[in-house]
Amino acid sequence: MCGVIVRTISWDTHGPAVRMIDQQRLPTAVEFLTLETYESVATAIREMSIRGAPAIGAAAGFGLALAAARSSTGSAQDLWQELTTAAEVLRGTRPTAVNLLWAINRMLKVAEASMVSGIETMRQALVDEAQRIADEDVEINRRIGAYGASFIKNGDTIIHHCNTGALATVDFGTALGVIRTAHEDGKRIHVLVDETRPRLQGARLTAWELDQYGIPHEIITDNAAGYFLQRGEVASIFVGADRVAANGDIANKIGTYMLALAANDNDVPVYCAAPLSTIDRKTASGEAIPIEERDPSEVLDIQRGGMPISPQGSKARNPAFDITPHRLVTALITEAGILEPPFDQSISHAFHHEDEE
Amino acid sequence: MCGVIVRTISWDTHGPAVRMIDQQRLPTAVEFLTLETYESVATAIREMSIRGAPAIGAAAGFGLALAAARSSTGSAQDLWQELTTAAEVLRGTRPTAVNLLWAINRMLKVAEASMVSGIETMRQALVDEAQRIADEDVEINRRIGAYGASFIKNGDTIIHHCNTGALATVDFGTALGVIRTAHEDGKRIHVLVDETRPRLQGARLTAWELDQYGIPHEIITDNAAGYFLQRGEVASIFVGADRVAANGDIANKIGTYMLALAANDNDVPVYCAAPLSTIDRKTASGEAIPIEERDPSEVLDIQRGGMPISPQGSKARNPAFDITPHRLVTALITEAGILEPPFDQSISHAFHHEDEE
Repeated sequence: MCGVIVRTISWDTHGPAVRMIDQQRLPTAVEFLTLETYESVATAIREMSIRGAPAIGAAAGFGLALAAARSSTGSAQDLWQELTTAAEVLRGTRPTAVNLLWAINRMLKVAEASMVSGIETMRQALVDEAQRIADEDVEINRRIGAYGASFIKNGDTIIHHCNTGALATVDFGTALGVIRTAHEDGKRIHVLVDETRPRLQGARLTAWELDQYGIPHEIITDNAAGYFLQRGEVASIFVGADRVAANGDIANKIGTYMLALAANDNDVPVYCAAPLSTIDRKTASGEAIPIEERDPSEVLDIQRGGMPISPQGSKARNPAFDITPHRLVTALITEAGILEPPFDQSISHAFHHEDEE
Repeated sequence: MCGVIVRTISWDTHGPAVRMIDQQRLPTAVEFLTLETYESVATAIREMSIRGAPAIGAAAGFGLALAAARSSTGSAQDLWQELTTAAEVLRGTRPTAVNLLWAINRMLKVAEASMVSGIETMRQALVDEAQRIADEDVEINRRIGAYGASFIKNGDTIIHHCNTGALATVDFGTALGVIRTAHEDGKRIHVLVDETRPRLQGARLTAWELDQYGIPHEIITDNAAGYFLQRGEVASIFVGADRVAANGDIANKIGTYMLALAANDNDVPVYCAAPLSTIDRKTASGEAIPIEERDPSEVLDIQRGGMPISPQGSKARNPAFDITPHRLVTALITEAGILEPPFDQSISHAFHHEDEE
């Protein structure tokens, strides 16, 4: 078994529909959503029933496939119009993860190229391309895992932030995929799981995944990471990314910057695992990456509709990501190999190599 | 009105009893505990119905006064024995805040000195001394507030960690007392309130206090502080301390170290407000300060008996404090004035001055 149970997101040919694990319900319940419109896929992304940059990319791909498969129009030209509308809606769901834009662009290119062949070919081409994005993601994560596992030694304690596992991708995971690979290689690992406020992706999702894989772990509050780093108990930090700028600056889940600072203060390496589709060469540095600010209720209540933990009427700020400057990052782990500083050069080289293939 | 409503902790002569706000119930309910035995005071400290280094000191003082007032013995020698037992129990409640030990030592000295005068004198001396510790605390906090307010400018946005207000002291507060003083001076202030996982002293207690004082504020997750610092939105950091070592290293609520790192990375000053009773000259540096590790359930559930936010059977680590090295601290604000680096010298000087008075 590669994944958690099944893939985080998949195409249901019988619907047609998009099927995904509802991550808002984990770990209390393992439930699946069957979505029959691209609008409901957009809602699932916005409300974080699905999250994680690679999974969001796949969801956008399947969302556009669904728009095509469910369209009642008989004209390729009309379908193109419908697809650009759907793309607009999907693009507006979450601003930071660049995989969303990457997948939408890839889908629209296929739509454009297949228009001349008629609407049925176009429909099939879009479903095929979405499936290809999903399949490639699993393969890419396996390669990331294999490259990154060399950074993990037998007996290591690792701090992991947010969720970067099977649930953050189509399957297997990025940073957590590296940890899984090391575990599969027989290395004894202990993971300190940052709970990752406010949405608790660490406590809810990563702890749940590590349970499935049999990897020993303990949950910590995000603000306790520094304590364990300071005491010399931590060998390395593993995180994912929602967008990597051309200079190697990383937009990732809120708290990554403070974690990286604490790691650097204690000479502990910070590894960021992400597919090339997360690297945005059009964005020069982290300052240019748009940071989503989400609803204050995520901070004020524990989980949406949950228990209020602050006085009635309290206000909150809720930035969902922060920027970790490239000076704090030891290496990027991609499917094209390990990228090391200076990142502007190693990133450029990785894409040059990729373009040639 | 100086305080929140009444003092956080006070002596009830009719009991005799110790009366305190139950901080486990805030902000949902404002309820008071009336404790009639030193054992129940010890439980209140351990379970954090009362918390904050100065408040814990006062509670230990009142706890010993209660042991004396409630004792049925007729012999001063027996009372001394009972007091040493009570002191042992109170000392064992929480290891990090040195004010606990400081207050117990102060009470035992009074007990020892008054023994020759007979048991009734001894009883009264202990009640008087506990009351004096409480009264002095309010006066000390006012002086800390006055000294520290000069660091706050009109229009400042301040990040505050944990709770250091009236609720963490007998009344008025240390770091929050400085913020209150600046507010009373007419300065326009905005506070970003670190929620302070796991026990949420920021979201539950500091937000509640700031509400009472009419000081504008927004709650943030602890891991979001770096984001606001990085964007240049923050003028200063204000924290308290549970113990300050002779070299200026600070043991404070978990997360202070990471917050101080993020402040330093962005050239934002870090101010620590604490009474001299929090400075432990017998402890050379932070490494020697004992750090309490509390029950994992505080991390795994939101509030005790609250909502589980992690898979069943999950493990957690829960260090309650961390050490902020003195290199990250801009100044200590004490009732004896502002102490600046090198802290070993300024601390030594402050106590020399104090000893002379």
